[in-house]
Amino acid sequence: MWVLCLGFSSMAMAQEPVDLEMVNRIRQEAFHHSQVMDILGHLTEDIGPRLTNSPQMAQANAWTQEKFKGWGLANVHDEAFDDFGRGWEFSESSVEMLAPRTAPLYALPKAWTPGTNGPVEGEVMRVSIKTRKDLDQYKGKLKGKILLLDDARAYKPGTEANWQRYDAAGLAELQDFALPKDAKRDRATFLKRYTERQELARAINEFFVAEGALATIGISGWDNGVIRVGGGGSRRAGESAGVPELAMVAEHYNPLMRALERKETVKLRVNVKARFTDEANQPGYNTVAEIPGSGKANEVVMLGAHMDSWHTGTGASDNGAGVAVMMEAMRILKAVGAKPKRTIRVALWSGEEQGLIGSRAYVAKHFAAYPEPTDPAQKALPASLREPTGALQKKADYERFAAYFNMDNGSGRFRGIYAQENTAAMPIFKAWLEPFHDVGATTVTSRNTGSTDHVSFDAVGLPGFQFIQDRLDYSTQVHHSNLDTYDHSSPEDLKQAAAIVASFVWHAAQREEKLPRKPLAQD
Amino acid sequence: MWVLCLGFSSMAMAQEPVDLEMVNRIRQEAFHHSQVMDILGHLTEDIGPRLTNSPQMAQANAWTQEKFKGWGLANVHDEAFDDFGRGWEFSESSVEMLAPRTAPLYALPKAWTPGTNGPVEGEVMRVSIKTRKDLDQYKGKLKGKILLLDDARAYKPGTEANWQRYDAAGLAELQDFALPKDAKRDRATFLKRYTERQELARAINEFFVAEGALATIGISGWDNGVIRVGGGGSRRAGESAGVPELAMVAEHYNPLMRALERKETVKLRVNVKARFTDEANQPGYNTVAEIPGSGKANEVVMLGAHMDSWHTGTGASDNGAGVAVMMEAMRILKAVGAKPKRTIRVALWSGEEQGLIGSRAYVAKHFAAYPEPTDPAQKALPASLREPTGALQKKADYERFAAYFNMDNGSGRFRGIYAQENTAAMPIFKAWLEPFHDVGATTVTSRNTGSTDHVSFDAVGLPGFQFIQDRLDYSTQVHHSNLDTYDHSSPEDLKQAAAIVASFVWHAAQREEKLPRKPLAQD
Repeated sequence: MWVLCLGFSSMAMAQEPVDLEMVNRIRQEAFHHSQVMDILGHLTEDIGPRLTNSPQMAQANAWTQEKFKGWGLANVHDEAFDDFGRGWEFSESSVEMLAPRTAPLYALPKAWTPGTNGPVEGEVMRVSIKTRKDLDQYKGKLKGKILLLDDARAYKPGTEANWQRYDAAGLAELQDFALPKDAKRDRATFLKRYTERQELARAINEFFVAEGALATIGISGWDNGVIRVGGGGSRRAGESAGVPELAMVAEHYNPLMRALERKETVKLRVNVKARFTDEANQPGYNTVAEIPGSGKANEVVMLGAHMDSWHTGTGASDNGAGVAVMMEAMRILKAVGAKPKRTIRVALWSGEEQGLIGSRAYVAKHFAAYPEPTDPAQKALPASLREPTGALQKKADYERFAAYFNMDNGSGRFRGIYAQENTAAMPIFKAWLEPFHDVGATTVTSRNTGSTDHVSFDAVGLPGFQFIQDRLDYSTQVHHSNLDTYDHSSPEDLKQAAAIVASFVWHAAQREEKLPRKPLAQD
Repeated sequence: MWVLCLGFSSMAMAQEPVDLEMVNRIRQEAFHHSQVMDILGHLTEDIGPRLTNSPQMAQANAWTQEKFKGWGLANVHDEAFDDFGRGWEFSESSVEMLAPRTAPLYALPKAWTPGTNGPVEGEVMRVSIKTRKDLDQYKGKLKGKILLLDDARAYKPGTEANWQRYDAAGLAELQDFALPKDAKRDRATFLKRYTERQELARAINEFFVAEGALATIGISGWDNGVIRVGGGGSRRAGESAGVPELAMVAEHYNPLMRALERKETVKLRVNVKARFTDEANQPGYNTVAEIPGSGKANEVVMLGAHMDSWHTGTGASDNGAGVAVMMEAMRILKAVGAKPKRTIRVALWSGEEQGLIGSRAYVAKHFAAYPEPTDPAQKALPASLREPTGALQKKADYERFAAYFNMDNGSGRFRGIYAQENTAAMPIFKAWLEPFHDVGATTVTSRNTGSTDHVSFDAVGLPGFQFIQDRLDYSTQVHHSNLDTYDHSSPEDLKQAAAIVASFVWHAAQREEKLPRKPLAQD
């Protein structure tokens, strides 16, 4: 019977209050006086891509601070997270085939790899290295060579539209929750493999340098002339950054492999201008700003998105879009004269692409963290891959935290929100979404979504959420690719997203209670 | 009643004989001993793109001759068509943004435009020239400038799969013939506009050179990082080739325009290594080879495809695929020991991309042509745009010509054939297609298809045909683009096409009568 009562209590929560007068003001400002594309334009086209700790990321920190101050936000500051590594940037990249025929090829460097120090020319050679032992066969053979790291890959036709929105069926499917499989992840095997891979990568970098290889070329992660690539080398001072490493469009890489198979001599000229911008490891910086609350000022509602990006595009969808929307949401709240009860705090994270580093450090510093591991193997792992050890250590602000809202799935329209298995939050979100049904945001799913900064909150039991977004061409050609540029972002969708974020944040700040929490996974 | 008799006679034609024993041999050779991808590989990856009159086109002429001779074909030779223009080739192309930030941009030169003679640096400036008068405003202002020729273009999401095959509905639709609209083309207006455009292009080339502009950049014809571009400058000796001209991916071009709109100074470095390979205009060359007939040896069945291509890809789908299929069809016929009654002649055309020049010249020389116009305005037009003047002048071989089969719609599977309004040919084609229903070729449509070399035959009343092909990603990202490469061609489809071409050609060579003709359009 008590269960039934709880049921009624839940139903009562469906009458979650919604401040429609404030929604009116937010929609008006967001839809008719939007600055979201100006913000995105400056971030991506004036500043450019924002690799963590690059000079451009520092520019972005400074510029967003300036904007926040201009809008009258309080406590505007950068907050350091320690020991990220070195900065890196590049400005030129060209590859020419010199034999068997002459033609320009399209390739871009992997982040954190050295430049070529002017054009270098060499013969191409295929190397295949899966374990440390595989290095032996190449001893004395790599000098002056340009190394192909991958097999050729057959073209995979795209038999669906590469740009899509959710249809009704797709949204309906989100109502199903897949129960966790009853298989324990083999942590020991995972740890061993991870450690081996890291060691192999370091050994390869040192080996290629010692052997005098000129450069390496890998195949882009996608077809159709798109370059999809992340980092190589090493961002850590004191570690070998290896030789220059590039990723080449599949349509230019495959022919090199085929020419080698035909026993032809393939010669390339490679010119990459790239540099590490620091000698020593540096901290990274999140940019933080607030609208102070009154009444419940020591309680906080957060919103955020990572500002760092990869380097081959301009990080417009990943995640200039999220940054522009979160900044615009703050601007809207100031513009409509919002005076929240709880403090509203925006954070523009850095180091997300290297494992949610900025948000995780922030959460550890301000809210909660598991104890540092003592096992050296665990210690060597990035924090996001470590197993929780011991009891969660909570700071005073842990209990004062209301909710965190994140955006990091491209520039597609919000279609609803992932409740991250927080069933108690679902009726609240349903109520808050209702004034946005007419702009396509209708769905609350119990499902989890992962791989970005709300996970840093969720992992310590704090309510951290992300929105359901139309995927557009994010996962087909934009994510981590040279096509992640301003033109692939959707202005109308970003206006809609900013309105919804502003409204969610407002309601989370005004709500009688903080948002309900779910039990910690390990509890 | 006479009509009815004709009807019966037509139905009798449905019993068009089909040599299934030969089809067996052709399918076996084509499907199980194919060389079509080896041919395509050599043509596109060892030789490369084959711009008309480029050194690579000459290599292709020589290599295909060698292959034909190796297969035991007769009368293997190149046949010149006069006065095409100069050859051109390029080997390097790089553009770097120097301000407002540094980044490599992706652009490739338009064919028949000069190189930069080493890297040049300059500020970017938008010019908009629609008439000769528009030049005046730029006098004295272009020195050292890099000129943007186009407006920014909004990204157009691809809401259908960019790679497609015909479905049953699509094939069924091909059974409908749209009656010609009752609107006369205004030849005089067309002629005037064409002439003005040509004159403006020449004036612009001379103006930019005189004013000392460094280069021009236009926007690629397609989005998604693809470079789609043809020629610029001029291939004609004695005409100004203008300044270096490039086409840039939309995702890099649009930001330049936006930066100019924000009144920012945009500076680029451009380096294009390109050269004209001749001082004077040169003839172009078609490569021709035969399997001589016996019995009706002075009658000829032709098959062909254009071997010239644009320069940014490797001309694999346009039209290495057609060349490889036509060559493979000849190889198959030799391999199966075909001894045809009529002579079978293959032609690998050049100058197709500049207006079917090679095939048109060949048809004029061997079969028929309209008299050269006397009106100077008509004379100035490319032959393919001229109005027929006077009576068709037929050579002796005109009546001895049986049929021509062409392929030039990418590497997609044959789904049938366009009968070009030759209703009398349809039952014949239906019979010939029957042994290929199991590999997807089922459809005979009365429709016309245009824009390639069978039109040179059709235009003088000779039966010239082209096949219906699955379009794959030809018209979405491959046609005239840097993605026109080997990896975007479909090996199984090309095997199927070669078998069908070999079988059609065989049946056309063995048939009691030559193929029926339709009346000349002007008769």
